[in-house]
Amino acid sequence: MAVMRPQPVSFNIAGSGIYLPRRAVASSEVDALIGAPAGTVEKNFGLTQRYWAAPDETSSFMGAEAARRALADAEWDAQSVDIILGACGVMEQPIPGTSVLIQQKLGLGSRGIPAYDVNATCLSFLMALDMLLDGFALGKWKRGLIVSADIASAALDFSNPEASAIFGDGAAAFAIENGGPLARKAHLLQSFGDGADLCRLEAGGTRLRPHDDLDGFLDRSRFDMDGLGVFKATAKRFPAFLEAFFARAETTPGALDLIIPHQASAPALEHLRRSLPDAHDKTIDIFAAHGNQIATSLAHALHTAHHAGRLKQSRNTLLIGSSAGISLGATLIAC
Amino acid sequence: MAVMRPQPVSFNIAGSGIYLPRRAVASSEVDALIGAPAGTVEKNFGLTQRYWAAPDETSSFMGAEAARRALADAEWDAQSVDIILGACGVMEQPIPGTSVLIQQKLGLGSRGIPAYDVNATCLSFLMALDMLLDGFALGKWKRGLIVSADIASAALDFSNPEASAIFGDGAAAFAIENGGPLARKAHLLQSFGDGADLCRLEAGGTRLRPHDDLDGFLDRSRFDMDGLGVFKATAKRFPAFLEAFFARAETTPGALDLIIPHQASAPALEHLRRSLPDAHDKTIDIFAAHGNQIATSLAHALHTAHHAGRLKQSRNTLLIGSSAGISLGATLIAC
Repeated sequence: MAVMRPQPVSFNIAGSGIYLPRRAVASSEVDALIGAPAGTVEKNFGLTQRYWAAPDETSSFMGAEAARRALADAEWDAQSVDIILGACGVMEQPIPGTSVLIQQKLGLGSRGIPAYDVNATCLSFLMALDMLLDGFALGKWKRGLIVSADIASAALDFSNPEASAIFGDGAAAFAIENGGPLARKAHLLQSFGDGADLCRLEAGGTRLRPHDDLDGFLDRSRFDMDGLGVFKATAKRFPAFLEAFFARAETTPGALDLIIPHQASAPALEHLRRSLPDAHDKTIDIFAAHGNQIATSLAHALHTAHHAGRLKQSRNTLLIGSSAGISLGATLIAC
Repeated sequence: MAVMRPQPVSFNIAGSGIYLPRRAVASSEVDALIGAPAGTVEKNFGLTQRYWAAPDETSSFMGAEAARRALADAEWDAQSVDIILGACGVMEQPIPGTSVLIQQKLGLGSRGIPAYDVNATCLSFLMALDMLLDGFALGKWKRGLIVSADIASAALDFSNPEASAIFGDGAAAFAIENGGPLARKAHLLQSFGDGADLCRLEAGGTRLRPHDDLDGFLDRSRFDMDGLGVFKATAKRFPAFLEAFFARAETTPGALDLIIPHQASAPALEHLRRSLPDAHDKTIDIFAAHGNQIATSLAHALHTAHHAGRLKQSRNTLLIGSSAGISLGATLIAC
């Protein structure tokens, strides 16, 4: 595979916003759902709570709310946006995509602003950001809105604690413009389809059809994950991935000031911290309060860092994560 | 909205391939399904047949077959591909995406070649092509594989003939490399979310949940389209879209030699031909034999033109279509 570095592109995070469902679900509630003694989920999985969306808190509703907050934070007129990218891990419905539903809810449905979706499961936000920056580099657009919104709680199987206890819902949005103090220094995605069966949700597309085999459909309509298998498959590829990434970035792990990871799981976050030098103080970790919010996790963690002013204090910020696929992805942002 | 033109980028279609399901379904069979007299579907909808996938002909199976044919046509070693973009209108399953499943079936699952998906319903191929060309322009990759694969027949409602009689299944793939005789001169997507309800498939995502309300889920688990509403919403925006597109392309409709449209419907194709000068002889129309194959239609029509040698004979080729959203999209390719 050829290794090429894209042209550097400078940008500004003009604003960001999140939406959290009204209902915070304590881990003690999940103890009961998985039939385990009180304290099991917090002890075994490392989170005290997560948020779960009510039926009216759809992905497009949450995404539009987060987008409104990002636009307000940026002090942008919504009409000034040139592109809306949907960056969800799971969709609200098959047709049309979540980006268009968000556009509609923002009152922009008659403007013609392009809206489409990119999907790399938990790395969808990372890929949407890279696409947006490509467009800046090529002069395609000046102001972009990226929205991640995910409802993991729609398809959890509590008979499989490791595939259910850690997941939460929410949305995060970013108003990003061409030119500014930040620069994309490198990006890398590596996908390993031989791990496609380790982490999956099978029902909801064209393969399993409720009208032909309802029982088969329902049997596979909840998220399934071989947690240890995913961890092993990811860990096996991680050293070579990091080596390729830092070679492409022409820098070293020691030069990182800030690490913004996908919030996959407590062990995944710990594995990351042990893989990079002095990473404990540099890593944004919101897992204990939010769990794994699919693609929204990375966007939410970036929002947290941005609003704490840490992005502008950091010379080298790493966005990094893994996703179903299995894929590994990272972007280096310099300030 | 700012109107900007991306830098020109040159490319070569090194190879392309399609996969058609084994079963061709004559329109007379669909007459029976919709309870209409023999000849109704052909007469009213303008197609004689379409192909429908069997259960083993999944999107990733068909996509991988089309990809193998594209790679063979290009005489490329599959290992030389830098990026695999999934460009399906509907997905095979929610997690992980179709691109990764195709990568796995191509025997590339341990290589790390990036694989992810873009979704703009029927315009997914157009958007994936634009993303691939962006990457060429920025030096991100040299060889890309774009795969569209769709199974419309999975969710048809034969009580609604206009939303069922015209749809077919299939896959198309392209092996495209940086540098070559073709050049992207312009691209435009306009999305109008106020038409999001005109054309939709609601069940299959996080909003409708079979475990909470099975009847409600099943009620909305088939594709629904207000055909006349879609046609009107699209036609209303079409003149301004064309004007904006040709202004961006700095050319005129009269300069087109070849028109490759999404095969939305017979009236949509006729409306397009009447909207552009001398379009009857210039338009690739495969609707009568294939119907509307969702995002695969545009890729399939491009494959047809490419294998007939028409792309290299055409100074100005227009890829154009509409999608659920509602979105309008077009790309001008010069040779």
